[in-house]
Amino acid sequence: MASTQRPILCQKITAMLQGKSFSIGDRLPGERRLAEMFKTSRNTVREALCNLESMGYLEIREKSGCYLKNKEGCISWEMLRKRKSIEASRQLVETLYLVVPGLVRTETLRLSPADITELETATSRLGEAIVNFDLSMISRVYISFFRSLAEVSNNGYLILLLKELELAAKNLEHAGTGLSEVQIDSLFAYHVELFNALKTGQPEQAEKLAKYCLQTFSQMVLPDS
Amino acid sequence: MASTQRPILCQKITAMLQGKSFSIGDRLPGERRLAEMFKTSRNTVREALCNLESMGYLEIREKSGCYLKNKEGCISWEMLRKRKSIEASRQLVETLYLVVPGLVRTETLRLSPADITELETATSRLGEAIVNFDLSMISRVYISFFRSLAEVSNNGYLILLLKELELAAKNLEHAGTGLSEVQIDSLFAYHVELFNALKTGQPEQAEKLAKYCLQTFSQMVLPDS
Repeated sequence: MASTQRPILCQKITAMLQGKSFSIGDRLPGERRLAEMFKTSRNTVREALCNLESMGYLEIREKSGCYLKNKEGCISWEMLRKRKSIEASRQLVETLYLVVPGLVRTETLRLSPADITELETATSRLGEAIVNFDLSMISRVYISFFRSLAEVSNNGYLILLLKELELAAKNLEHAGTGLSEVQIDSLFAYHVELFNALKTGQPEQAEKLAKYCLQTFSQMVLPDS
Repeated sequence: MASTQRPILCQKITAMLQGKSFSIGDRLPGERRLAEMFKTSRNTVREALCNLESMGYLEIREKSGCYLKNKEGCISWEMLRKRKSIEASRQLVETLYLVVPGLVRTETLRLSPADITELETATSRLGEAIVNFDLSMISRVYISFFRSLAEVSNNGYLILLLKELELAAKNLEHAGTGLSEVQIDSLFAYHVELFNALKTGQPEQAEKLAKYCLQTFSQMVLPDS
């Protein structure tokens, strides 16, 4: 659960950054120093900095620190595509969790033979990426499968959202268990089962398998999940 | 269920449009003529044209016809913001259905007192829009409530997605029941109940109310829903 002090701390930090002593590109004081300055915990500081990154004020460079990016704060798709933090990976996975199971459920019964062929191709591309043992490529190909589904849905918002996630996946920092044999086997096995559920028109089964797939994916790219 | 001929028809139409006899801005033959040309039903033609609009090839102008927009087909957030068709409204509502209930469920227990205040302000803005009897404003304010929730989630993708939906809502064509007294009363009543469930930290209740809210919203803006 997020700290209740977080939004207030965000306001205090942005007020500080908007003052004359900070210029774009400046490095912020470290977490420990900020916690002292604002009489709060380092955890609260870390949460607030993540918020401010999402709002476009800061850039968090892993192992380096936080840098002032924009005094007004803004956020654009362009910016999201370039992020490289674990926090960015977490948001990507969270968004997939929110969108994919419902998308799978609603599209299962709308698939034409041509759509099935398209999804079959996407599934074999995933197989190739797995053989090449390339985690960044696996992530992209994996998301592109669901982008193909979004294209079936004919919903412009979902098509573009999945496309953005696919572009962002290129830069993912992977901090999860990575590519152990077991992970790969279960990711691909669930994925093939998902494809079969889609092909044979079983919406509930497809939705359930999509959730399993996402869990395995999440374990690969995120720590402690 | 979508016609299985649709994807094939889409390919045939794009092949036709990419030929030399069509230039950007040209009006396509009418639905009846296209159905004759490709030996298919008008329903299939209509579905295919909707697909091609989403893919950026066409612009559908209600009561006027379809116009060639881009021979390569592309789709951008910018383009989605400017659409005015009932199909665009349908996609907007569908996306809200897919994203909002889950967002409400996960954020309920993460709300700080400052977040609650922000959502309370958004709720009273909705009340004002209702008093002004302005359907376009109601749609925008309504979506902005969920954008505020996305900001709590600190998830850049969801923040921007909801922002895009909010921008698109400005242009919504409303073809639903519109603003009858009963509609307005139930929209606002459900919304206040949703706010209370969020405030008192009841995730399941909040998720259920969010679905009711969306149903009422959908009836206002879409035909036959």
